[in-house]
Amino acid sequence: MEGEKRENQNQAAEEEDQIVNPWEVAAKDGGKIDYDKLIDKFGCQRLDQTLIDRVHRLTGRPPHVFLRRGVFFAHRDFNEILDAYEKGKKFYLYTGRGPSSEALHIGHLVPFMFTKYLQDVFRVPLVIQLTDDEKCMWKNLTVEESQRLARENAKDIIACGFDITRTFIFSDFDYVGGAFYKNMVKVAKCVTLNKVQGIFGFSGEDHIGKISFPPVQAVPSFPSSFPHLFSGKDDLRCLIPCAIDQDPYFRMTRDAAPRIGYHKPSLIESTFFPALQGETGKMSASDPNSAIYVTDSAKVIKSKINKYAFSGGQDSVEKHRQLGANLEVDISVKYLNFFLEDDVELEHIKTEYAAGRMLTGEVKGRLGSVLSEIVERHRAARASVTDEVVDAFMAVRPLPNMFD
Amino acid sequence: MEGEKRENQNQAAEEEDQIVNPWEVAAKDGGKIDYDKLIDKFGCQRLDQTLIDRVHRLTGRPPHVFLRRGVFFAHRDFNEILDAYEKGKKFYLYTGRGPSSEALHIGHLVPFMFTKYLQDVFRVPLVIQLTDDEKCMWKNLTVEESQRLARENAKDIIACGFDITRTFIFSDFDYVGGAFYKNMVKVAKCVTLNKVQGIFGFSGEDHIGKISFPPVQAVPSFPSSFPHLFSGKDDLRCLIPCAIDQDPYFRMTRDAAPRIGYHKPSLIESTFFPALQGETGKMSASDPNSAIYVTDSAKVIKSKINKYAFSGGQDSVEKHRQLGANLEVDISVKYLNFFLEDDVELEHIKTEYAAGRMLTGEVKGRLGSVLSEIVERHRAARASVTDEVVDAFMAVRPLPNMFD
Repeated sequence: MEGEKRENQNQAAEEEDQIVNPWEVAAKDGGKIDYDKLIDKFGCQRLDQTLIDRVHRLTGRPPHVFLRRGVFFAHRDFNEILDAYEKGKKFYLYTGRGPSSEALHIGHLVPFMFTKYLQDVFRVPLVIQLTDDEKCMWKNLTVEESQRLARENAKDIIACGFDITRTFIFSDFDYVGGAFYKNMVKVAKCVTLNKVQGIFGFSGEDHIGKISFPPVQAVPSFPSSFPHLFSGKDDLRCLIPCAIDQDPYFRMTRDAAPRIGYHKPSLIESTFFPALQGETGKMSASDPNSAIYVTDSAKVIKSKINKYAFSGGQDSVEKHRQLGANLEVDISVKYLNFFLEDDVELEHIKTEYAAGRMLTGEVKGRLGSVLSEIVERHRAARASVTDEVVDAFMAVRPLPNMFD
Repeated sequence: MEGEKRENQNQAAEEEDQIVNPWEVAAKDGGKIDYDKLIDKFGCQRLDQTLIDRVHRLTGRPPHVFLRRGVFFAHRDFNEILDAYEKGKKFYLYTGRGPSSEALHIGHLVPFMFTKYLQDVFRVPLVIQLTDDEKCMWKNLTVEESQRLARENAKDIIACGFDITRTFIFSDFDYVGGAFYKNMVKVAKCVTLNKVQGIFGFSGEDHIGKISFPPVQAVPSFPSSFPHLFSGKDDLRCLIPCAIDQDPYFRMTRDAAPRIGYHKPSLIESTFFPALQGETGKMSASDPNSAIYVTDSAKVIKSKINKYAFSGGQDSVEKHRQLGANLEVDISVKYLNFFLEDDVELEHIKTEYAAGRMLTGEVKGRLGSVLSEIVERHRAARASVTDEVVDAFMAVRPLPNMFD
């Protein structure tokens, strides 16, 4: 009941405070999301240096840039996954995407890039849920359109480099049924209407599809939902990399898990990727100029950054040379923090820019080249993902070498 | 919105009135169910003699005893099914059972006996839903136990004589998914939480499995939920024979149907089968002496009837000869009304009994022989239903000759 307690405590505060749930992210008074408050409200744990060092030691590989720089900043029982791993017990990864748009923006790549890293360094299987049913219900898309978007998004996900011998991608419309549906029923029996209304804020005017959905996102946390992969491995633990707005689903899941005989899934949770216009929440799908899309050309990327990336630099060159840039609000620096892998170069840019020796234009130029390279690499990788490749990743099949 | 209007109008009245929903049937002040009021409250239509005559004419066969004697007494758009049938358009039948108990009582056989008659005279396909998911959620049975009961009940259903070339039986735990799940999502999008709370009386303390369930019972009404049977026949109409306590599900279904491009299903609805102790509602599964089970021996049947069947006869033979029996409350007469096929004999018994020339013991004796014969026939039929036969009825397969 960890989640419920927190909710009751914070219900009053929330009304005037920031809002973070799977469908809405809004900071207080249009400001920045307060992630410390979020950790406190949700009741998850901060991902500290000790844990990051432990990942380094256990994997024998430098921690991913998203770990080193606090992009993934919170967790639930990630240490238990590492405890088990240290004793030679493997786990599996579960992440997902709600396919509501044709093209992904670079923020959408963050959880997948990180999940690929986890798959590579821990050598574990991965299930990726495409919640086409959710988007059909929330975005009022037709079943057919949701399924089409799911397949399009699957191509972008596959382009992130997942290992087909360890990865199963599924769409809910295809895969719900059988063992998966049985687990949905088991979870649903553990969750009252009051509880989902408290967690997700559903009202009487909401349709019952919304109220039925949380168990669908819950049950990939349980190995028995995938008998073709994990038959006889009910004890296998699950680690979920996701943005922290998905935490409510898994708070609910973790409450239900022990009551139906399963491990609670562990989570490792990221901050939100900021909009070009400034760090006030997630990006808006309705404003194409708020984000860099993986379909944008190098020219468009350069132009969007120059036009829209909020600058922490000063109004005039003279003033900038004198006062330096405010890195706290500068979007180019924030984006470089996500995507410029070289720690030394990033530190150099931050020092020089803060001191006023580097100008906004120079930082934006560097960001443009970094993002163009990522997007170009993605475009090339995606071009090689044929329909046959999508079918292969989405085939319900055993993965005999998934732990090797 | 036919259903919603009715509910609002009757909400206040209902509180002090009879309660009829899929989980509870209770007459006002322990009296008899007022079926006229129920028709008015639910907004369905009375099944009148004109319709019964039309069935006679269209099928060329005498109407079933359950039609002739008002057991099936209400309907929704049954005339539209007959209109279409008259023009050479076939339909399909859909009925079901919630498998909550090992053995069925004879009241459970009523909808299946009637459905078999409809299948025979109209020569149409039939889908039978076993809602093992519902019973798992409402009765707190395990998934495995619900599935076991579903198969046991399937044997009793098959023993009613359904034609395997026209009949598909499915368990929700087995069959939910694919096209069926897509229709569930489409229905769920059309139904608000307020609406299901109004129809079914769910509260905040109820678990969300209950709130998720109505679309599961709704979608067998749509041919596209069965692509192996009705692919390309989205226009096929559906007729649902059921007891009237199931009407709330199909009111909801009929509201949703035109919004998602489907025909509204038609219904033909029965009264409840009374308990041995008297006609105050449905029988109670918790009291084995309230019903005759299909597993009862002839001796047990005789003894139960003699001991428990509420009698409308008088206290003494003298008084009975003088005043006669009150047929309105006499359970033996009511049971004979369901199961004694010979109209002439039934009229004779009623006349003689009402006039005091026939005694309760004689009527009970006749009922005992009628029920023993039905139960014996059922037992013999059920004994021949092997697991292989169940598998054959439940196989997801085309039925190429289902309309022949």
